[in-house]
Amino acid sequence: MDYKRNLTLLTDFYELTMMNGYLECGMENKIAVFDVFFRTNEESNFCVCAGLEQAIEYVRDLHFEEDDIEFLRQTNTFSQRFLDELRHFKFTGDIFAIEEGTVVFPFEPLVTVRAPIFQAQLLESALLNIINFQTLIATKASRVVRAAKPASVIEFGLRRAQAPDASIYGARAAVIGGCDSTSNVLACQMFDQVPKGTHAHSWIMSFDSELKAFREYARIFPHVCLLLVDTYDTLKSGIPNAITVFNELRAKGIEPVGIRLDSGDLAYLSKKAREMLDEAGFPNTKIFASGDLDETTIQSLILQGSRIDMYGVGTYLITSHNNPSLGGVYKLCAIEENGKLQPKMKVSDNPFKITNPGEKRVYRLFENKTNKAIADVICLEHEVIDSSKPYTLIHPTDRWKKLLVEDFYVKPLMTQIFKNGELIYKLPPIDKIVEKANASKASFWDEYMRLTKPQTYKVDLSEELFELKHRMLMNYGKD
Amino acid sequence: MDYKRNLTLLTDFYELTMMNGYLECGMENKIAVFDVFFRTNEESNFCVCAGLEQAIEYVRDLHFEEDDIEFLRQTNTFSQRFLDELRHFKFTGDIFAIEEGTVVFPFEPLVTVRAPIFQAQLLESALLNIINFQTLIATKASRVVRAAKPASVIEFGLRRAQAPDASIYGARAAVIGGCDSTSNVLACQMFDQVPKGTHAHSWIMSFDSELKAFREYARIFPHVCLLLVDTYDTLKSGIPNAITVFNELRAKGIEPVGIRLDSGDLAYLSKKAREMLDEAGFPNTKIFASGDLDETTIQSLILQGSRIDMYGVGTYLITSHNNPSLGGVYKLCAIEENGKLQPKMKVSDNPFKITNPGEKRVYRLFENKTNKAIADVICLEHEVIDSSKPYTLIHPTDRWKKLLVEDFYVKPLMTQIFKNGELIYKLPPIDKIVEKANASKASFWDEYMRLTKPQTYKVDLSEELFELKHRMLMNYGKD
Repeated sequence: MDYKRNLTLLTDFYELTMMNGYLECGMENKIAVFDVFFRTNEESNFCVCAGLEQAIEYVRDLHFEEDDIEFLRQTNTFSQRFLDELRHFKFTGDIFAIEEGTVVFPFEPLVTVRAPIFQAQLLESALLNIINFQTLIATKASRVVRAAKPASVIEFGLRRAQAPDASIYGARAAVIGGCDSTSNVLACQMFDQVPKGTHAHSWIMSFDSELKAFREYARIFPHVCLLLVDTYDTLKSGIPNAITVFNELRAKGIEPVGIRLDSGDLAYLSKKAREMLDEAGFPNTKIFASGDLDETTIQSLILQGSRIDMYGVGTYLITSHNNPSLGGVYKLCAIEENGKLQPKMKVSDNPFKITNPGEKRVYRLFENKTNKAIADVICLEHEVIDSSKPYTLIHPTDRWKKLLVEDFYVKPLMTQIFKNGELIYKLPPIDKIVEKANASKASFWDEYMRLTKPQTYKVDLSEELFELKHRMLMNYGKD
Repeated sequence: MDYKRNLTLLTDFYELTMMNGYLECGMENKIAVFDVFFRTNEESNFCVCAGLEQAIEYVRDLHFEEDDIEFLRQTNTFSQRFLDELRHFKFTGDIFAIEEGTVVFPFEPLVTVRAPIFQAQLLESALLNIINFQTLIATKASRVVRAAKPASVIEFGLRRAQAPDASIYGARAAVIGGCDSTSNVLACQMFDQVPKGTHAHSWIMSFDSELKAFREYARIFPHVCLLLVDTYDTLKSGIPNAITVFNELRAKGIEPVGIRLDSGDLAYLSKKAREMLDEAGFPNTKIFASGDLDETTIQSLILQGSRIDMYGVGTYLITSHNNPSLGGVYKLCAIEENGKLQPKMKVSDNPFKITNPGEKRVYRLFENKTNKAIADVICLEHEVIDSSKPYTLIHPTDRWKKLLVEDFYVKPLMTQIFKNGELIYKLPPIDKIVEKANASKASFWDEYMRLTKPQTYKVDLSEELFELKHRMLMNYGKD
């Protein structure tokens, strides 16, 4: 396995021209603070954070090689001084982030970068690329898995993923989102999963008959005998042949695993298949279904009484088909002026596009009695929420909406990852991330996690952050 | 630049279990023929082929390393003989393919693999992953570029692409589809493009004032001075400040490049911007627009009389947002029996899902008088179309629909790529692929390329292929 690459040039060209500009203006060492956040996920009111591990590896490995610098020179855009500077480029700043697997909401900083602007600017494009995609897919997977419960879901999307990385990191994100595993062997090798899968139609078609193909498969893989029954005729040929082979297998003292349906009406066929298997004495033999599934189709199949024990979900999960992008952005929220960090904000006619100024942290309040999440509060970096006293939540825009919270505890969501360029965060193994994701999802009332029209979860701004933002908006245009 | 990886394990697990199965059945050396084709592209009646170069590199570099074999051993699924066999794995077969940049239609084999089934089976997942994505994006790009004509289009989607590869190979496919270039620096380095881009809102926000930020940018990059004018107020601040700086630049004898609009109503703002620039004496200064654009929005902006000279298109192009997957499949069409290739087909209740049997080639017929494409014919491998005689096209399902074609010439669309495992095809540089794509698109009447409800282009089956398919269908179930 050798999947390491130098991603330093994985950036939009303008990051480099701006870096050259900062250098030529003598601003290169000004400390700047940027937030990664999303404003909305069109399909879900929350997201499951993912991609931090790859984002960390990207930052840690940043370095310009000679041929990179030579390529940039040939664009005839950059100063010699800038190109020389790149030779020594190394990230020396601080990064705070919300851990992978955490349920997060719009406008919460998922990652905050505090570094000389020369460095911080470079990170934008790749950081967004990595975090946006994995967060999108972990979120989609969490929806599919929620719909399928208690049946398990295997990620099957390699052939329809948007290029190799999307299949690999998408499989990783799918597991974080709750999938049991994936068919993607390279992703399993990289992320310590057990690959899943049996055979395709081509196996059946390469034999004279379906029965022979099933028999040979059962002979070679007796202990993982799961047969694809829809190559010719599911009910008239596939399932009867499978039952024949299952009986032969049982005669040898081995129980079959199950059958897979990959076409036709999965509700009807799974009910019929269940009957046929039960009647033949195989009530514990599983029914696996695949073929253009997503959370909506799965819910609808369940509502129709389908009898499916496991789902293989491909295209619609790995591309987040109905919503194939998460619009995460990287916005400047503070910059050093006269040796002090000054809050900055992007103003827009559209209130939705106005950013939150200053370096921020996110806290989650939980009810002591139930351990369920009550609300999140976005605060300025220095603020502390004292859970020994009642806390007043204030709506981020409708300030007359207030809620007094008592009998709660509070958890910071952001963790320091890099300190002065040094990685101080211990990357958790993927099973710990999955545990974290399960715990994070379980800490929300079902009403917030419903797939359709869920209740809105409260994400408020602290009084101090609100006042700062309000003051800056009021003063805007007066300079 | 170091972007090479071993993708050998980039496969669905079942390809490996089937390979193990073929070996254990003594079938591993049976020659099999598989076709890569798509049944539909939901957004377009044609596709622009792309990805062959990466598919070729994948096949050429296939090899199992010791740690790959060790990983597979630990799954407790495979025989020792199979694992030993992998150690010597090398592709020794033949591959035929349609060249990148060619306009292709549903059911045409884009790639045909003829090899021992042990090898041919392995290729399925990765080949589909690579070809599906790049073909999807080249096709989407061709739509966006067609809508924008004569304005040019730059690919801007890195931050929203589905992981790093999608941004890189998507940028490559976008260029094949007709984009002028991309902002993705790594993609430019890998595929010999000139990266494009100037500065972001963070550049403006890192200065005390917009005017100062513009001035500094113009000072540092006088010859590529394109200013982003929407950070604060496009018409009241951005454009007036830009004009101030443009005048200062002109006083030094340098002409500015243009402005970029990235928010607000692009039709209204571009018309106003054009007026303001014209009045200020900058009629040749360009207007660049970006922000959630796709072919539909671009067409609508043009219909409203917008004055945009260049488009930056991100999210909607790089993810093919409305249609984020191409459902290309890899289907067995022939297998060796008693030393001879026997045609195979997948039967389905759904006629749309019935495959075309046998090893095939695709021919395109062109009118001598206009050099425009008339129709494609999918033939069996040994067939020849003699253009010296009239040729009768027959509808693939409605066989009473016939068309006699005269005064035409014919071109084979498929080229041999690998012969006995040896790469015999010379990979063209990307500018040649772009030329090929432009020529291929130009050979179709506009009616076939229309973005909305285009005329259906004829893709027929040769009489011999039709008869074979018909015979096999009639005999199906009789064995």
